[in-house]
Formats: sequence, structure tokens, C-alpha cells
Amino acid sequence: MDSLALIAIGSVCAAGVCMGLGAIGPAIGEGMALARALSSIAQQPDETNTIVKFLFVGMAMIESTAIYSFVLAMILLFANPFWNYFLEKAGG
Amino acid sequence: MDSLALIAIGSVCAAGVCMGLGAIGPAIGEGMALARALSSIAQQPDETNTIVKFLFVGMAMIESTAIYSFVLAMILLFANPFWNYFLEKAGG
Amino acid sequence: MDSLALIAIGSVCAAGVCMGLGAIGPAIGEGMALARALSSIAQQPDETNTIVKFLFVGMAMIESTAIYSFVLAMILLFANPFWNYFLEKAGG
Amino acid sequence: MDSLALIAIGSVCAAGVCMGLGAIGPAIGEGMALARALSSIAQQPDETNTIVKFLFVGMAMIESTAIYSFVLAMILLFANPFWNYFLEKAGG
Amino acid sequence: MDSLALIAIGSVCAAGVCMGLGAIGPAIGEGMALARALSSIAQQPDETNTIVKFLFVGMAMIESTAIYSFVLAMILLFANPFWNYFLEKAGG
Amino acid sequence: MDSLALIAIGSVCAAGVCMGLGAIGPAIGEGMALARALSSIAQQPDETNTIVKFLFVGMAMIESTAIYSFVLAMILLFANPFWNYFLEKAGG
Amino acid sequence: MDSLALIAIGSVCAAGVCMGLGAIGPAIGEGMALARALSSIAQQPDETNTIVKFLFVGMAMIESTAIYSFVLAMILLFANPFWNYFLEKAGG
Amino acid sequence: MDSLALIAIGSVCAAGVCMGLGAIGPAIGEGMALARALSSIAQQPDETNTIVKFLFVGMAMIESTAIYSFVLAMILLFANPFWNYFLEKAGG
Amino acid sequence: MDSLALIAIGSVCAAGVCMGLGAIGPAIGEGMALARALSSIAQQPDETNTIVKFLFVGMAMIESTAIYSFVLAMILLFANPFWNYFLEKAGG
Amino acid sequence: MDSLALIAIGSVCAAGVCMGLGAIGPAIGEGMALARALSSIAQQPDETNTIVKFLFVGMAMIESTAIYSFVLAMILLFANPFWNYFLEKAGG
Amino acid sequence: MDSLALIAIGSVCAAGVCMGLGAIGPAIGEGMALARALSSIAQQPDETNTIVKFLFVGMAMIESTAIYSFVLAMILLFANPFWNYFLEKAGG
Amino acid sequence: MDSLALIAIGSVCAAGVCMGLGAIGPAIGEGMALARALSSIAQQPDETNTIVKFLFVGMAMIESTAIYSFVLAMILLFANPFWNYFLEKAGG
Amino acid sequence: MDSLALIAIGSVCAAGVCMGLGAIGPAIGEGMALARALSSIAQQPDETNTIVKFLFVGMAMIESTAIYSFVLAMILLFANPFWNYFLEKAGG
Amino acid sequence: MDSLALIAIGSVCAAGVCMGLGAIGPAIGEGMALARALSSIAQQPDETNTIVKFLFVGMAMIESTAIYSFVLAMILLFANPFWNYFLEKAGG
Repeated sequence: MDSLALIAIGSVCAAGVCMGLGAIGPAIGEGMALARALSSIAQQPDETNTIVKFLFVGMAMIESTAIYSFVLAMILLFANPFWNYFLEKAGG
Repeated sequence: MDSLALIAIGSVCAAGVCMGLGAIGPAIGEGMALARALSSIAQQPDETNTIVKFLFVGMAMIESTAIYSFVLAMILLFANPFWNYFLEKAGG
Repeated sequence: MDSLALIAIGSVCAAGVCMGLGAIGPAIGEGMALARALSSIAQQPDETNTIVKFLFVGMAMIESTAIYSFVLAMILLFANPFWNYFLEKAGG
Repeated sequence: MDSLALIAIGSVCAAGVCMGLGAIGPAIGEGMALARALSSIAQQPDETNTIVKFLFVGMAMIESTAIYSFVLAMILLFANPFWNYFLEKAGG
Repeated sequence: MDSLALIAIGSVCAAGVCMGLGAIGPAIGEGMALARALSSIAQQPDETNTIVKFLFVGMAMIESTAIYSFVLAMILLFANPFWNYFLEKAGG
Repeated sequence: MDSLALIAIGSVCAAGVCMGLGAIGPAIGEGMALARALSSIAQQPDETNTIVKFLFVGMAMIESTAIYSFVLAMILLFANPFWNYFLEKAGG
Repeated sequence: MDSLALIAIGSVCAAGVCMGLGAIGPAIGEGMALARALSSIAQQPDETNTIVKFLFVGMAMIESTAIYSFVLAMILLFANPFWNYFLEKAGG
Repeated sequence: MDSLALIAIGSVCAAGVCMGLGAIGPAIGEGMALARALSSIAQQPDETNTIVKFLFVGMAMIESTAIYSFVLAMILLFANPFWNYFLEKAGG
Repeated sequence: MDSLALIAIGSVCAAGVCMGLGAIGPAIGEGMALARALSSIAQQPDETNTIVKFLFVGMAMIESTAIYSFVLAMILLFANPFWNYFLEKAGG
Repeated sequence: MDSLALIAIGSVCAAGVCMGLGAIGPAIGEGMALARALSSIAQQPDETNTIVKFLFVGMAMIESTAIYSFVLAMILLFANPFWNYFLEKAGG
Repeated sequence: MDSLALIAIGSVCAAGVCMGLGAIGPAIGEGMALARALSSIAQQPDETNTIVKFLFVGMAMIESTAIYSFVLAMILLFANPFWNYFLEKAGG
Repeated sequence: MDSLALIAIGSVCAAGVCMGLGAIGPAIGEGMALARALSSIAQQPDETNTIVKFLFVGMAMIESTAIYSFVLAMILLFANPFWNYFLEKAGG
Repeated sequence: MDSLALIAIGSVCAAGVCMGLGAIGPAIGEGMALARALSSIAQQPDETNTIVKFLFVGMAMIESTAIYSFVLAMILLFANPFWNYFLEKAGG
Repeated sequence: MDSLALIAIGSVCAAGVCMGLGAIGPAIGEGMALARALSSIAQQPDETNTIVKFLFVGMAMIESTAIYSFVLAMILLFANPFWNYFLEKAGG
């Protein structure tokens, strides 16, 4: 079994696990923030603009951890340095 | 056992695990947000429009983490760069 | 053991795990939303229409993560690109 | 060990795990919704019809995730595309 | 080791795991619903009939997920399509 | 190692795991229901008969999931269809 | 390694796991019921007899799941049908 | 490696796991009951005798699940039917 | 590798796991009881004697599950019946 | 299988696990902080500026743990000292 | 690999696992008791002596489960009966 | 497979696991502290300076555990004493 | 692979697992106690001396379980009786 | 594979696991303490000095368990007695 195939399998599995685990936390964190934000709007409608503005800035920060996972998975699939090296070696 | 088959198995398993894990978090997060939103509407019916608008914007952000997982699973199945490379090599 | 059989086993297991895990989150999330919605209706019967309308739109969004899992499992079983490739190769 | 037997074992195990895991979430989600619905009826008996109507529509949606798991298990046992292919090949 | 024995072992284990896991969720979900129903009866004795009627309809729906698991286990033991195929082949 | 011994081991282990897991959920669910029922009796002694009647009907339903597990374990030990088949074959 | 020894090991392990897992749930469930019962007696001393009567009937039902596990473990050790078959065969 | 040694190892491990798991549940359950009983005595000192009497009867029932585990472990070590059979066979 | 060494390793590991798991439950259970007892004393200083008396009787019962684990570990190390048998056989 | 391939696989898997686990904690921590901040703004609109300022400073500190994980994953992929060493050795 | 080395490895691992697991429960249990005791002192300063006296007696009982684990680990390292036997045999 | 490669793989995996696990705790701990701090500021705006000062000193202490993990991962990658030794030996 | 190396590896892993697990419980237990103590001081400043005195005595007792783990890890590394025996044998 | 390499791998993995697990508990414990301390300051600003003084003394004690883990990891990497012995033997 050649090295290229092994690295491909490893990268595919790592990308799957990384994205799968990395989607649990941000979704729950954003859910907690959104839930509290909506009940805050209901209690204090006059502050809707302030609450919503910071809600989405905050959710963007939380989302960033999901995006890190997604970026890492994309790098593993499409810009994998180890794969590129072996490709060049195989093509050289 | 040739490399193509191994990468296919690895991709199939990674896609399954990624989607399976990635569906847990968003569903629970959206459930929490939806639950709180509905009880907020009941307490403050006048704010229904505001609450609902931001509820669905927020749920779309939470849903995005599930979609990342789904997109990754689709990429692993239908646009897998490692599979394409070996296909070309096998066909070359 | 030929490649076709291995991919078949891998797909079957991935589909089972994906659907099994993917049914936990949505069901609990929808349960939380439904529970809160019903107690909101009891507190504010006049808002029943509004609450129910958004409850089912929201539950449809939550259900979507279960559907992603189900779709992926169906794709793994009935539209598996790796299986199709090997079938063609075996039939070619 | 021939391919048919292996696929049979894989399908049997995947069906068992899928149904076993897939029965945990819906049952707990429905339990939460039912519990809250009954205490809502006790607090607001006049709304019994409304609450019960939406309770069962909602529980049907939650039940759907259990049914997805059951359907998938049935497909794995009785309409397994991989099994059918190998059966035909073995019978051909 | 012949195929019949392997499928028998796989089915037996899958049935055990499926029923074992599938009994956890429904029992806890029904427990939550029953607990809340009884305390609702104590608070609102006049609604006993309504509460009890919907309690048992709801518990029947929850029980259904346990029954799915039980049915699947029974199918695996007594109507296993893979076992039947190999039996016929062995007897043919 | 002959097939009979393997099926015996598999059945024994499956029965043990099935009963062990299947006893966790019902016991906790019944505990929750019983606890709430007793405190309801203390709050509303006049409803004792109603509460107790439905408590035991409900607990019987919860107990049913434990009984499913027990029945399955008994079937695996004393009415195992696979074991019977191999016994007949061995005795034939 | 002969079949008798293998079945003995399998039975011993299955009995240990079954009893170990099966003792967790009932004990916690009974603890919850007992705790609530005692605080109910403190609040409503006049209902002591009623509460205690149903407490012990209920705890007996919960205990039954532990007893199922214990009975199964005893069957595995002292009335194991597979062991008996092999004993007869070995002694025949 | 002879059968006697294997059964001895299996019994030793099963006894350890059984007792280790089986001590978790009863201790936590008794702790919950004891905690609530003591705070009930503080609230209602006149009922001390009643509360304590049923507390210890109840704790004895909870303790019984720990004792089942201990008895099983003792049986596995000192009255193991499989061990006795092989001892007799070895000594015969 | 002779049987004596194997049984020694198995006993050592079983003793370690048994004591390690068996120390978790009792400590947490006693902690809950002790915590509630002390706050009860603070609320009702006149009942200190009654509370403390039953606290220590109860904690002794909880402690008993830890002691079962310890006794089992001691038996596995110093009065292991399987070890004694093999010792005699080796020395005979 | 040469050393380069092994290190590549190890690095890919370590990067995936590290980022996957490392995204859970920060997202939940930030969600808790954001949720509480928004409800604080609703209660005390006059303090919005103060709360928001420290919210984002604090979230940046929490985010730092996610960034550590991301940095480590990047180092493992693009600045891996072990990989560089073997590359030089292979190229030397 | 001789028996002495195997028993030494087994004992070392068992001691580590036993102490590691055995330190979790007591520390959390004592933390709960200590926390409640200190807040009780703050509410009822006049009972400080009584509370503290029984707090430390109770914590000593909880600590005893940690000490059991420690003693067992020490026995495994310094008074291991199996090690002593093999030492004598090796030295004899 | 030479020693250098093995140590490199071990170090890479250990660094990934260490950082991945080590990012969970601090992020959740800081999130709890930040959440409470912000709601305290909202309740007591006059104490903002005091609260914020100690919040960041405390968060720095919590952050330190994440930094320990990061430092250890860095040491494993860039200042690994075992790697250095083998490098020297290989280069000597 | 000689015995000395194996015992060294076993001891190193046991020490790491023991300390890693053993640091979780005490830190959480002390955190609970410290948190409650500080809020008690805020409620009852006059009792600061009493609370703090017993807080640190209690935390020292909790810390003791962490110290047991640390001591055991140190013994495994620096005063390992099995290692010493083999060292002497190797040096003899 | 020589002993030096094995001990190096074992030490590296043990250090990573030890630090990774050992950072979870202290961070959460300190977070709880810090959160409660800040809200106590908000309620009782006059006690700020007392609360902060004991907060940091207490956090230092909690931090100590993280430091134990860090120290152990450092010892495993830089003062490993087993590594030193084999180095001397290899160099002798």
C-alpha cells in the first residue's frame, strides 16, 4: 500500500472527525446565546437594536470556532502539504 | 486491496461519522432557541415580529454548523480530491 | 475479499451509525421546543396561532438536521458514487 | 468467507445499532413534551383541545426521527441494494 | 467457520444491543411524563379523566420506540432474511 | 471451534448486555414517577386512589421495557432459533 | 481450547457485567423515591401509612429490574442451557 | 494454557467489574435518601421516629442491590459451578 | 507463560479496577448526606443529636458498599481461591 | 512504509483531533458569557458600553484557547519540525 | 518475558488506575460537604463548633474511601503477595 | 522503522491530544467567570472597576492551565529532549 | 525487549494517567468549596475568620487526595520497588 | 526497536495525557470560584479586600493540582529516571 493512499485515508478521516466534533460546541453555544437574547428582547423591547447588534457580533465570534474546524477540514482535503509533497515526489 | 477501495471506505465512514455527530449539536441548540422564543412570544405578543425575525436569522447561523458537516460529507462523497487523483491515475 | 464487498460493508455501517446518532439530537431539540410551546399556549391562549405557526417552522428547521442524516444514509445506500464506480469497473 | 455473508453480518449489526441509538432521543423528547403538555392541561383545562391537537402533531414530528431509524433498519434488512447485487451475481 | 454460524452470532449480538439500548430512552421518557401527570392530577383533580386519557395515548407513542426495538430484535431472531437465504442455500 | 459453541457464547454475552443495559432505564423512570406520586399524595390526600391507580398502570407500562429486555434474554437462552437449527443439524 | 471452557468464560463475564450494570439503575431510582417519600412524610405526617404502603409496593416494582438481572446471572451460572448441552455431549 | 486457568482469570475479572460497578449506584441512591431524610427530620422533628424507621427499611432495600453484586462476586470466587466441574474433571 | 502468573496479573488488575470504581459512588453519596446534614443542623440546632446519630448510622451503611469493594480486593489479593489451588498443584 | 508517510499521517490525525476537541470548550464558554451579557444589557441598558467592552475583551481571552488549538494544528501541518527534518534527510 | 516482569507491570498499572479513579469521588464529595458547611456557618454562626466537629468527622469518613484506594495501591507496590511468591520461587 | 520516526509520531499525537483536551476546561471556566462578572456589573455598576480588575487577574490564572498545555505541546514539538538525543546520536 | 524497559514504560504511563485523573476531582471539589465560602463571607462578613480557617483546613483535606495521586506518581518514578529489584538483578 | 526509543515514546504520551486531563479540572474549579467571588463583590463591595485575598489564596491551592500535572509532565520529559538509567547504560 503506497504512501499516497495512506495519507489520503488519514486526511479524510481526520477531516470528518474534526468537523463532526467541531460542530457540536458552536451550535450549542449559539443556541444558548440566541435563546437568552430573544427572551431579553421580550423583556426590554426598547433595547432590541443594542441586543441584536451584539448578539450577532458575539455569534460571529462563536461561529469562528466552527469555521476553524471547517477551514482545517478544507485544508486537509484541498491544500494538504503532505499530500502535495508526495504528489510531487510521485510525479517527479 | 487497491488504493481506490481503501479511500472509498475511508471516505464513506468519515462522511457518516461527520454527519452523525454534526447533527447533534445544531438540533439541540436550535431547540433551546426555539423554546425560549416561543415562550417569549407568549409573554410579549407585541414583539412577535422582532423576536421571530431574529430567531430565524439566528437559527440560520446555528444551522450553518450542520450545513458545514453536510457539505463536508458531500465533498467526501462527490468531490473527493484524493479519489479523483487515484481515478485519473487508474484511468491514465 | 473484493473491493465491492468492502465498500458495501463500509457503506452499510456508516449509514447505520449516521442515522442512529443523527436521530438523537433533533428529537431532543424538538421535544424541548414542543414542551415550551404547549405551556406557552396554556399561559397565553390568544397567541396560539402565532406560537403554533412559528413552532412548526422552527421544528421543520430542526428536523432538517435529521433529514440531512437520513439523506446521507440514503445516498450511501442507493447513490453511492464509489459503489457505482466499482460496479462499472466490474461490469466493464 | 464469501462476500454475501460479510454483507449480511454488516447489515444486521448496522440495523441493530441504528435502531438502538435511534430510540433513545425520540422517547426522551416525547416524554418532555408530554409531561409539559399534561401539566399545561391541568393549569388551563379550557385549552385542552388546542394543546392536545398540537401535542400529537408535534409528537408525530418527533416520532419521525425514530421512524427514519426504523425505516433505515428495515431497508438494511429487506431492501439492501448491496445484498441484492451480490445475490444476483451469485445467482447469475 | 461457515457463513450460517457467523450470521447467527451477528444477529444475536445485534438483537441484544438493540433491545438493551432501546429500553433506556422510552422508560425514562415515560417516567418523566407519568411523574408530571400524577402531580397534575393532584393539583387539578377535576381534570383527571382528560389528563389520564392523553397520558396513556402519549405513553403509547413513546412505548412505540421501545416496540420498534423489540420488533427489530424479533425480526433479527425469527425472520432474518439473510439467515433464511443461507438456510435455503445450505438446504438446496 | 465448532459453530454450536460460538453461538452459545454469543447468545450468553448478548443476553447479559441486553438485561444489564435494559435494567437501567426502567428503574430510573419508575423511580421518578414513584417519587412524584408520593409527594402528590402528601399534597392531595383525597386523590390517593386516583393517583395510585394510574401510578401502577403507568409503572406497568414502564416496566414493560424491562420485561422486553428480560424476554429477549430468555429467548436468547432458551428458545434461540439459531441454536435449535444447529442442534438439529448436529443431531441429524 | 475446548467448547466447555469457552462457554464457561463467556457465562461468567456476562453474569458479572449484567449484575454490575443492573445494580446501578434500581438503586438510584429507589433512592429518588425514598428521598421524596421521607420528605413527604415530614410535610404530611397524617398520610404516613398511605405513603409508606405505596412506597414499598413501588420500590418492589423497581427492585424487580435488579432481580431480573440477578435471576439472569443465576441462570447463566447454574441453569445455563448451553453448558448443560455440552456437558451431556461430553459425558455421552 | 489449560481451561482451569482461563476460567479462573475470567471469574476474577468478572467479580472485580461486577462489584466495582455495583457499588456506584447504591451508594449514590442511599446518599440521596439519607440527605433528604436528615433535612426532613430538621423540619419536622416530631416525625423523627417514623422517618428513621422507613429510612432504614428503604436503605436496606437499596443496599440489597449492592449485596446482589457482592453475592455474585462471592459465588464467582468461592462457589463457581464451572470451576468445580473442571476441578472434578481434572481430579477424576 | 504459566497459569500462576496469569492469575496473579488478572487478580491484581481486577482488584485495582474494583477499588477504583468502588470508591467513586460512596464518597459522593456520603458527601451529599453530610452536606445536607450540616445545613440541617444550622437550621435546627436543637435536633443536632438526632441528626448526627442517624447521619453516622446512614453513612456507615453507605460506607459498606466501599467496604465490599475493599474486601473483594483484599480477597483477590490475599485469599484468592484460584491462586491457592494452583499453588497447591504447583507445590504438590 | 517510509518514515515520511508515517509522520504525515500522524500529524494529520493529531491536527484533526486537536482542532475538533479544541472547538467544543471555547464555543460553549463564549455562549454562556454572551447569553448572560445580553440579558444584563436588557436589565441595565445604561451599562451597555461597559458590559460590551469587557464582554469582547473576555471573549477574546476565551477565543485564545481555540486559537491555541488552531495554531497547533497549523504548526503540525505547515511547520512541523519532524517533517522538516525528514524532508532534509530525504533530500540530502 | 518472565512472570516477574509481567506481574510488576500489571501491579504498576493497577495501582495507577486505582489511585487515579479513587481520587475523583472523595474530592468531589468533600467539596460538596465543605461548601455547604461554610455557608451554614455563615447563616448560623452560633453553631460553628457543632458544624465543624461533625464536618471533620464526616470528611474523615469520606476520606476513608480515598485512603482505601491509596492503601490498595501501596499494597500492590510494596506488599504484593503474588510478587513475593515469585520472588521466593526465583530466589529458591 | 527507525526510532526517530517513532518518537516524532508519538510527540505529534501527544501534542495534539494535550492541546485538544487542555482547551476544553479553561474555556468553560473562563466563560462561567465572564458571564457572572458581566451580570454583576449590570447589578452594581459602581463596582465595575473592581470587578473587571479581578476578573482579568482571575482569568489570567485560569488561562494559565491552557498555557501549560500549549507550552507542553510546544516543548514536545520544538524542544523535545528525546528527539534531540536521537538526532545527536544519528548525527554522531 | 528486556524486562527493565517494559517496567519503565508501564510505570511512566501509570504515573501519567494517575496524576491526570487525580487532578480532576480535587480541583472541582475545592472550587465548589471556595466559591461557596466567598459568597458566605460576602453575606456574613463578621464570620470571615471562622469561615476562612475551616475553608483552608477543609481544602487541605481535599488537596490530600491530589497529593496521594502525586505521591503515587513520584513513587512509581523514583522509588519503584519492581524497578529496583530488576536493577539489582541486572547489576548483580 | 531499542529500549531507549520505547521509553521516550511512553514518556511523551504519558506527559501529553497527564497535562491534557490535568488542565480540565483546575480550570473549571477556578472558574466556579472566580464567578462566585465577582458576584459576591458586587453584592458586598465593602468586603472586596477580604474576598479577593482569600480568592487568590484559594485559587493558588486549586492551581496547585494543575501544577502537579505540569511538574509531572516536566519530570517525564527532562528528569526521567528510567531514561537516565538507559542513557548511562547505552553510554557505558
